[in-house]
Amino acid sequence: MHRTHTCGELTINDLGKDVTLAGWVQKSRDLGGMTFIDIRDRYGITQLLVNMDEDADLCEQARGLSREYVIKVTGKVIERTSKNPKMPTGDIEIKVSSIEILNEAKLPPFLIEDETDGGDELRMKYRYLDLRRTPVRNNLILRHKMAQEIRKYLDEQDFLEVETPVLIKSTPEGARDFVVPSRMNPGEFYALPQSPQTFKQLLMVSGFDRYFQIVKCFRDEDLRADRQPEFTQIDCEMAFIEQEDILNLFEGLINHLFKKVKGVDIGSVPRMDYADAMRLYGSDKPDTRFGMQFVELNEIAKGAGFPVFDNAELVVGINAKGCAEYTRKQLDELTDFIKRPQIGATGLIYMRHNADGSLKSSVDKFFNEEALKQWSAAFQTEPGDLVLVMAGTTDKVRKQLNELRLEMGNRLGLRDKNKFAPLWVVDFPLLEWDEEHNRYHAMHHPFTSPKPEDIGLLDTKPGEVRANAYDMVINGTEIGGGSIRIHDRGLQSLMFKHLGFSPEEAQKQFGFLMEAFEFGAPPHGGIAFGFDRLVSIFAGLDSIRDVIAFPKNNSGKDVMIDSPSTISDEQLKELSIKTTV
Amino acid sequence: MHRTHTCGELTINDLGKDVTLAGWVQKSRDLGGMTFIDIRDRYGITQLLVNMDEDADLCEQARGLSREYVIKVTGKVIERTSKNPKMPTGDIEIKVSSIEILNEAKLPPFLIEDETDGGDELRMKYRYLDLRRTPVRNNLILRHKMAQEIRKYLDEQDFLEVETPVLIKSTPEGARDFVVPSRMNPGEFYALPQSPQTFKQLLMVSGFDRYFQIVKCFRDEDLRADRQPEFTQIDCEMAFIEQEDILNLFEGLINHLFKKVKGVDIGSVPRMDYADAMRLYGSDKPDTRFGMQFVELNEIAKGAGFPVFDNAELVVGINAKGCAEYTRKQLDELTDFIKRPQIGATGLIYMRHNADGSLKSSVDKFFNEEALKQWSAAFQTEPGDLVLVMAGTTDKVRKQLNELRLEMGNRLGLRDKNKFAPLWVVDFPLLEWDEEHNRYHAMHHPFTSPKPEDIGLLDTKPGEVRANAYDMVINGTEIGGGSIRIHDRGLQSLMFKHLGFSPEEAQKQFGFLMEAFEFGAPPHGGIAFGFDRLVSIFAGLDSIRDVIAFPKNNSGKDVMIDSPSTISDEQLKELSIKTTV
Repeated sequence: MHRTHTCGELTINDLGKDVTLAGWVQKSRDLGGMTFIDIRDRYGITQLLVNMDEDADLCEQARGLSREYVIKVTGKVIERTSKNPKMPTGDIEIKVSSIEILNEAKLPPFLIEDETDGGDELRMKYRYLDLRRTPVRNNLILRHKMAQEIRKYLDEQDFLEVETPVLIKSTPEGARDFVVPSRMNPGEFYALPQSPQTFKQLLMVSGFDRYFQIVKCFRDEDLRADRQPEFTQIDCEMAFIEQEDILNLFEGLINHLFKKVKGVDIGSVPRMDYADAMRLYGSDKPDTRFGMQFVELNEIAKGAGFPVFDNAELVVGINAKGCAEYTRKQLDELTDFIKRPQIGATGLIYMRHNADGSLKSSVDKFFNEEALKQWSAAFQTEPGDLVLVMAGTTDKVRKQLNELRLEMGNRLGLRDKNKFAPLWVVDFPLLEWDEEHNRYHAMHHPFTSPKPEDIGLLDTKPGEVRANAYDMVINGTEIGGGSIRIHDRGLQSLMFKHLGFSPEEAQKQFGFLMEAFEFGAPPHGGIAFGFDRLVSIFAGLDSIRDVIAFPKNNSGKDVMIDSPSTISDEQLKELSIKTTV
Repeated sequence: MHRTHTCGELTINDLGKDVTLAGWVQKSRDLGGMTFIDIRDRYGITQLLVNMDEDADLCEQARGLSREYVIKVTGKVIERTSKNPKMPTGDIEIKVSSIEILNEAKLPPFLIEDETDGGDELRMKYRYLDLRRTPVRNNLILRHKMAQEIRKYLDEQDFLEVETPVLIKSTPEGARDFVVPSRMNPGEFYALPQSPQTFKQLLMVSGFDRYFQIVKCFRDEDLRADRQPEFTQIDCEMAFIEQEDILNLFEGLINHLFKKVKGVDIGSVPRMDYADAMRLYGSDKPDTRFGMQFVELNEIAKGAGFPVFDNAELVVGINAKGCAEYTRKQLDELTDFIKRPQIGATGLIYMRHNADGSLKSSVDKFFNEEALKQWSAAFQTEPGDLVLVMAGTTDKVRKQLNELRLEMGNRLGLRDKNKFAPLWVVDFPLLEWDEEHNRYHAMHHPFTSPKPEDIGLLDTKPGEVRANAYDMVINGTEIGGGSIRIHDRGLQSLMFKHLGFSPEEAQKQFGFLMEAFEFGAPPHGGIAFGFDRLVSIFAGLDSIRDVIAFPKNNSGKDVMIDSPSTISDEQLKELSIKTTV
């Protein structure tokens, strides 16, 4: 071992000890007669002292140490004259008697400090240097702790971690698969799993009863800012349970994690119907750190002769508390915000509840004071409040108002990263209309069970059939979702039919699963959490990239190792493939 | 929840309780007035009783339940008249008051019993049914427990589990890579990792200090009986350590596992030089559950005029204790065994140390009693022993005698699966001569550090340079291996040169790693264990397939899901590739 202690553990209790430390030179200060060096490792930073008067050669050597040199030093623990209460090792320093350079270091292309001067691209190329920075490393330490605690909790609940295969079969349903040509079976391909869905269901058929896995999954999608081609899922499945059991057990998991990792007691997780989430927040993943719920105004706002309202399917608004003093400019900003192409609204109506109690709207021409009093009552406004109202077709205006609500939450500082508001959203629709392909597709996935009482609607009103499906949402981000599955071959065939599969297609892709259902499949269900996302929320970060050791960029490239890259003709020939570029 | 208890937990302490169980019908026996049903789940089997006299309808229903039906039953816990002490639930049975069929089951294609009648292929196709069998499920429960204990131990030792990427870069060194065409980067490919080697070294450069991961790795090799295209590795790396530290820490891991999982105290793990292992066992992975070490006879057996010995580089044998009475037929079997093409020896010499003390060899023409007494002394024979001797070139004859030794171990029952003999083999050669390509290649991998004192031999006697490399062997199987790595760019370049890389090739493939070494790389080293293999040894199994939930067959196929398979022309086009078959 090249050290007796780490750079984070020596304190006043170790005074007088002869120690050897190893680590990186964080920085050095030369104060004439004395040279101070901060030595850093994963565990902390310790101050080293070399005294010119006592050992000139050693001091000369110390002066030659640049940032990020890897050194091994021996010396004695002494009390500092000028203590640093912010550091666990701040009471002591090491009076150095010898220094060994274990490895030299070129000047890093950016500062290895909590706040760095390196741009995104540079830090991606030298990711191994970026990982030296304490905040980045701490994200990965948090990730490790969370993974350990998840396993501990699920193990205690009798879950078995079972590894499912990575080389599986391509199915055209869902997102695009990554595929892997098989050399031994020319012309054939494996696919990388988008999730272990069918395997975990087979494990239930096998009687494994409770399964989990923290597992890499893959999706070949066009990458948006916060997507990665490979991501990690906490994948779980249980047999002989109902939706209620799953909600309780995984509420327990989230509670356990917050408690063990963040020392926070989040209490029980509230539940909300999908229909209510859409009605009150315009989103199936509402940020419930703050209220500002939607208020629907059709009854009081329609019929007043204002065409925008009269022609709308839905008139709906929010009460931005304390914003009555918003200037014209601020209101214009909000209007510009909702008119951006990503949101696409046409206009914003407002009503101020002024400090003097008066009500003043942007549509006073159509609504007199009496009418506005009705608005005030509906929104429960108080003096100082600002009501923001939008109108349009129901689905669209809800989405638009959701964006405005989140924007107001940001402006009002209501979206505190240190506050956590988890929520179960339940009773999702089974099917979702796909405008592009002019057919229904499964909102969750084709294995989701409809609510038994809604099965009769499948033929007549498929859009109204509810599923035994649920999402967990924290702070407006979906962090997990699952469902009770179909375990009956007949019902599964019916589902495939409604999703537009021919019996032949269904058989070719999922024949093995449907056959398995005929050999004694138990009732079962499960859930999967996005682990990267969950860690990023715990870390208070917006991006999942910062909680992944070696992420890819938006073109799916790892610029550090230069991947993907071309392969040799020999490899292509062995795999019986050719490139067409 | 469809149950109040599992099928494994009710005992005499639960008498009188009203319970609901859910599970599979293991079997039913109809004894006229009474029907007994065994209901099974992951946790055990419980006996159900339905009485004709009391409820004829229920009894009729019970009689209709076939094997593997999924049922939910409610009833009262009563004491059995005829107890079964072999079962944890053997003192009680459930007097059933209602039965609900949760799912019917077709007759399985093979028996769901500890001993099944299903052949390999059938069990692979219906793997989800094979997994219902208790011994198969127990293997996977063992695997889960071992993974949990490994993580617990390493976490306590300050290791961080860090996920490294699955989509990486193809490097022609080593075995064949599986590759993944990149849709977003046409003509380019990712590769699946054969191990996270370079990433874990980069994590050391990043200051992570102690890294581990239980991780899937991939090799596109022609599959032998016990290889899988995807396999799981316990991958570890540490900084600021020396070989001794690694051996001690992972000896601790193996001790911990044996203790926690099997309740066995294996004590400290002996160490053996590679050179000694080859000399005494003819193998770098000796099975040390039994002795029967090699004895070299050159000094006493050469020069007696027996051309087979006189022309041989090495004359070497073993003492098969207690086998002096072997018949001519048994000796012929042994000769046939070593003459098989897989072993390729030309002949076997023997000497009996008879019960009466006399010595009798198959080469009495060349060796008189005096000479045989020398043999006897060398092998320390006692009356009743049989000496088996082979001759040839050193490397070959050692390999051949190793096979014979293992065969004799089998015949003498010395390879007990319930006995565990772990061993460190250390001081491996750095380089291995590759006859096919007429050059040296790295015995471990190109990142392995030569022993500092041997670096001078690199130019003159490369075959004699020893590495800081080590394997862990249990019962004659290599279950893990590792090395101290090179952390100096100059030495790494020198290694690549000796391995026949041009500077350009080295730069193209490993430039990022060599560059990383210039930014302050600490001394580091690590180890990787084959997790599948380790579990199979703990389970006392010969094949890793039985400890993998969904293994592939020898053609790399998953016959259950029918993978690999063809993909659509649309997919191929999007990926800018064509098949050439």
